Amino acid sequence: MKKLINAVGDVLAESLDGFAAAHADIVVLGEERKFVRRRSPKPGKVALVSGGGSGHEPLHAGFVGAGMLDAACPGQVFTSPTPDQMLEAAAAVETGAGVLFIVKNYEGDVMNFAMAAEMIQVPTATVLTNDDVAIENSLYTTGRRGVAGTLVVEKMLGAAAEQGAALDALKALGERANAATRSMGIALTSCTVPAAGKPTFAIGEDEMEVGVGIHGEPGRRREKLAAADAIAAELVGACVADLGLKRGAEVLLLTNGFGATPAMELYLMVHAATRVLAGAGVKPVRYLTGNYVTSLDMAGCSITLTVLDEALAKLWDAPVHTAALRWGM
Amino acid sequence: MKKLINAVGDVLAESLDGFAAAHADIVVLGEERKFVRRRSPKPGKVALVSGGGSGHEPLHAGFVGAGMLDAACPGQVFTSPTPDQMLEAAAAVETGAGVLFIVKNYEGDVMNFAMAAEMIQVPTATVLTNDDVAIENSLYTTGRRGVAGTLVVEKMLGAAAEQGAALDALKALGERANAATRSMGIALTSCTVPAAGKPTFAIGEDEMEVGVGIHGEPGRRREKLAAADAIAAELVGACVADLGLKRGAEVLLLTNGFGATPAMELYLMVHAATRVLAGAGVKPVRYLTGNYVTSLDMAGCSITLTVLDEALAKLWDAPVHTAALRWGM
Repeated sequence: MKKLINAVGDVLAESLDGFAAAHADIVVLGEERKFVRRRSPKPGKVALVSGGGSGHEPLHAGFVGAGMLDAACPGQVFTSPTPDQMLEAAAAVETGAGVLFIVKNYEGDVMNFAMAAEMIQVPTATVLTNDDVAIENSLYTTGRRGVAGTLVVEKMLGAAAEQGAALDALKALGERANAATRSMGIALTSCTVPAAGKPTFAIGEDEMEVGVGIHGEPGRRREKLAAADAIAAELVGACVADLGLKRGAEVLLLTNGFGATPAMELYLMVHAATRVLAGAGVKPVRYLTGNYVTSLDMAGCSITLTVLDEALAKLWDAPVHTAALRWGM
Repeated sequence: MKKLINAVGDVLAESLDGFAAAHADIVVLGEERKFVRRRSPKPGKVALVSGGGSGHEPLHAGFVGAGMLDAACPGQVFTSPTPDQMLEAAAAVETGAGVLFIVKNYEGDVMNFAMAAEMIQVPTATVLTNDDVAIENSLYTTGRRGVAGTLVVEKMLGAAAEQGAALDALKALGERANAATRSMGIALTSCTVPAAGKPTFAIGEDEMEVGVGIHGEPGRRREKLAAADAIAAELVGACVADLGLKRGAEVLLLTNGFGATPAMELYLMVHAATRVLAGAGVKPVRYLTGNYVTSLDMAGCSITLTVLDEALAKLWDAPVHTAALRWGM
């Protein structure tokens, strides 16, 4: 295992400490590193709390800040955070308007956030993300997995919460944004969980995993590595078909790396995806490109499409000031 | 070779096209993709033009925009751009106040930018970056290599140019910023140049290259992979010693990934570097963490320190709006 680490047991703590030091103007680390919260909460707004297993950085802690999340709870690598983390995070950022949990659809996360929601004393609602079109049920999920589209849902909810939307309206908006979003990815290499010390899966030097999950879970099939254009055709095509996009539709195109994918390749995928979209008469009107929802050191990428109407585009464009996404402020 | 590409000969063109599409609000691609320029030039300011071999993305095109570069010339992978690229870029962005070339210290780049400077009809000056403390002379350089610190020099020059600094003042500032900056890196894996189709160097499963260059060039030595703390001690220590930092010094800490290094490991390195700095009585007052000056798909990282005084800190903090760096606007 080749990683920039000290002891395996200290990876998460030391990484969180570095993150909190590097972004001390934006975030504060909670006691015992149970959560990362926004340094300057905005009183009176609904508190947005997300979280999940670590290893997907910058998701979620990198999206804590003005215009996006109020707190994020980091679990151990690829392991759900616990309900007490969510309760303490909520207590630290709730200011009277209730708490919205944003949860990726994995059984552990769903269960633990549900337990937190039951125990909490303030109004709560939950938005579940399940944007991965690759497969219907999986190793860790009933239904589709929540993957890179979670970023889009968190950004739009963050903007609406900042503008004063109420808890019910946010829940409806989150469900609408999730329903407008689809993703699918491929892996060129496996990730390696530090505690395991070896790759999660074996893959040939000339193979890719089509429809891979963000924990290195199996997708649709294993096959020979294809050209970027063919990969884009499958990933974009799956999203376009599942969304039922008609010619003239406008979308946000998120081209996401899994942690070890260089910018040169991601931008090449943007080019390939844009050509596929043009063939379908679909217009990308917003772009985000980078390693945002990752799987430790996995190489590969996912494509996410979100159908934009004027309201969703405005929420995407609204100011945001987090470690990983920053514009307009 | 596992890359998200189509034909090897099309990698650069397709990647640039994707980049230009994704950031059409910020940049315009020049004819025949000879340069990337700022979409909205600011008349009357000195034009800042950089460039170099591709494969280091987001350097340099990702730093084109308000508050940073006016144009960047992408060469083929790890190959200098040609003088005609620089001349056409300069012609596209020059508005009467002259042109400043920012050049990493590699023989090909130095020679080609010098030829462009001789041929150009407007006042020019050149700032050379050579921040790599790892080795004194190298395969492609007389003197030290220009590496991740180039980003810092470009950011500070961009801010000063935006504020109206004249060509002479910018040259002096660039030399001062470069003199205040040192870097050193280590590689865990080799990069693979697409046209070569195989790794640039062989490295054992338990080895690292200490002092590696950003083209995968040899550094000081090859040795067993060390713990993050030991790596940080050597990288930070080398920069602190070479800068002659005294207790109480304030620095910008740039923790840079080489293209395949996940955020979790980079933030762990931030933590490790911060501890080493604390031991030396040096205070990091600004942080930048991410894959910014890369070597294709190489795993590993570099540490860059820039000694900050009030003037340099202000230039760092000044608004910037580029594909890869954005704050304050």
